[in-house]
Amino acid sequence: MALIQAAQRRGAHSVEIAAPPIVLATASIAGDMEGEGRFGDEFDKILEDDLWGEESWEKAESKMLEQTVRLALAKASLHEDQIDVLLGGDLLNQIIASNYAARQLGIPFFGLYGACSTMSESLLLGAMLVGGGFFTTAACAVSSHFSSAERQYRNPLELGNQRPLSAQRTVTGSGATILGAFSDPPSPHIAVVGGTVGRVIDMGIDDVNNMGAAMAPAASDTIVQHFQDMNRSVDDYDLIITGDLGKYGQMHATELLAEQNIYVEGKFFDCGERMFKEAQDAHAGGSGCGCSAITLNSHIVNRMMAGQYHRVLFMATGALMSPGIAQQGETIPGVAHAVILERRGA
Amino acid sequence: MALIQAAQRRGAHSVEIAAPPIVLATASIAGDMEGEGRFGDEFDKILEDDLWGEESWEKAESKMLEQTVRLALAKASLHEDQIDVLLGGDLLNQIIASNYAARQLGIPFFGLYGACSTMSESLLLGAMLVGGGFFTTAACAVSSHFSSAERQYRNPLELGNQRPLSAQRTVTGSGATILGAFSDPPSPHIAVVGGTVGRVIDMGIDDVNNMGAAMAPAASDTIVQHFQDMNRSVDDYDLIITGDLGKYGQMHATELLAEQNIYVEGKFFDCGERMFKEAQDAHAGGSGCGCSAITLNSHIVNRMMAGQYHRVLFMATGALMSPGIAQQGETIPGVAHAVILERRGA
Repeated sequence: MALIQAAQRRGAHSVEIAAPPIVLATASIAGDMEGEGRFGDEFDKILEDDLWGEESWEKAESKMLEQTVRLALAKASLHEDQIDVLLGGDLLNQIIASNYAARQLGIPFFGLYGACSTMSESLLLGAMLVGGGFFTTAACAVSSHFSSAERQYRNPLELGNQRPLSAQRTVTGSGATILGAFSDPPSPHIAVVGGTVGRVIDMGIDDVNNMGAAMAPAASDTIVQHFQDMNRSVDDYDLIITGDLGKYGQMHATELLAEQNIYVEGKFFDCGERMFKEAQDAHAGGSGCGCSAITLNSHIVNRMMAGQYHRVLFMATGALMSPGIAQQGETIPGVAHAVILERRGA
Repeated sequence: MALIQAAQRRGAHSVEIAAPPIVLATASIAGDMEGEGRFGDEFDKILEDDLWGEESWEKAESKMLEQTVRLALAKASLHEDQIDVLLGGDLLNQIIASNYAARQLGIPFFGLYGACSTMSESLLLGAMLVGGGFFTTAACAVSSHFSSAERQYRNPLELGNQRPLSAQRTVTGSGATILGAFSDPPSPHIAVVGGTVGRVIDMGIDDVNNMGAAMAPAASDTIVQHFQDMNRSVDDYDLIITGDLGKYGQMHATELLAEQNIYVEGKFFDCGERMFKEAQDAHAGGSGCGCSAITLNSHIVNRMMAGQYHRVLFMATGALMSPGIAQQGETIPGVAHAVILERRGA
């Protein structure tokens, strides 16, 4: 009896999808502050207020996730019945934004929890399930919301606590990517061709206002592993995109990578660090599942379709922070999953 | 441009895995009350107390999950480095039991949240990822813990609240299944050959002490869909296993299925309803991710290997209950994923 080496596995933690699914459509809905940020012009919809007609921030977040999927489906000219599986998650306890959105959509649903890494977790899983011939289509969608996240993870907004400069601002936003298997894909198109599954890495960070420091070692670990598994280097990518390391986390990750002789300068794009304009006073930058999700599903995809980027590594980064266990003295581990996106065709 | 019909998809929500992975090993660790229950003789390890030398129930739960995976690996004579991916989850906020277990194990990790449905969610995803040729091996593992769950979801144990008869007792336990792709599998062996992805179903239940009622419609929906997609009936299975509907939830699901002309009597096995002996006074039965996980990974697998069952439908059932959104007046939806396990060989 012998184990069969998986045909689409590369190195220790990576996969290369032989029949990669293509991106049929993407959508992004963002909060008003995000709308005033650097990518504001590229989001499909910007909320005027963060309740969006709902009674609570949590219900508004769930509506945002549901409507983002509906918007992406409309762009792909597909009905919910034509989506075989929905993969999604969010930051709220029991991923309620996603569960209630899935209830409204009625699409078979795999719930995920990867904190802010969930956009790349959902994309990597979705791409393998479609690429493996199990589903024709998959919707990958995540959300986060500044007010619901602050309430759950830190302090009630009403307290008006001052935040340290290392703190990031949870992005109010939801992003969705519809993947599908096509016999004759349009030209150009974007394909999800593989990626690297992250490990949970803990370097002993215990400051709940410095998530970038908790995530940087995980981001670095996944990048090093990816290059090793795929026998590639920074030169093979037009952009190395991280989720929400923020200003300080990005600096820290750059240092960790330099120790491994990997130099990402000029190619390193952190969605959190880029999200807001300097004048918006968002301290170390944006964070949350929605941060990388709205950036990928608007700006990045737009630039790829325009021919500016041909191959990017998209790696949402998650700080696995939990108030309950933090109070018991545990440190904050991180995780980062990497997904390779390629522009194909003329 | 045309969508390619997925080769391994069946009907609307089901898959049939052409090269199904086999179960290399399973393991189960259970609490002392579970150890005194109906399957006590079949668990690999029974805890003497529910802290297991740790400072908190949450840390004890995480240790239980980690040690269950290690035990399963030892049985399979595999080292952590030989496991390509870990898929797991639990009931705690931010799935901390799983995240910290994944940190200790160092295996690339996809975090899941499906409430008590997570054992079948992890098995179905793991089976597709191995069956699709992306990974050679996968570990699927979940946990739950009576004390950590009560503290988080209901009332502090110290209050000594009386529980209604409809209440179920969250099982303290962790189960793990190691899946692998084999060229010449042993005879007999168990293969994970397919399944049905559940939808989030909500019938308006708002009683946090009656989870069985919240899950029964989801269980019924997935069973109906499974038979329709696979063109099968109850006769095709030796056992229809649900996770933790409990005494009342199982009765309710039986009624819902009868309305669809599906009669499961004699084949219906609910892990929650069976877990405890009558004298243990566990009210409506066991619940939690661990309930179906320890039953599957001991009793069910043992009986299949002994030749008593040849094909079973294993369907862990999740009540997507969240204290935060329940306080905002939302009802409790449920979800259930079904996995087909087959005994193959002599």
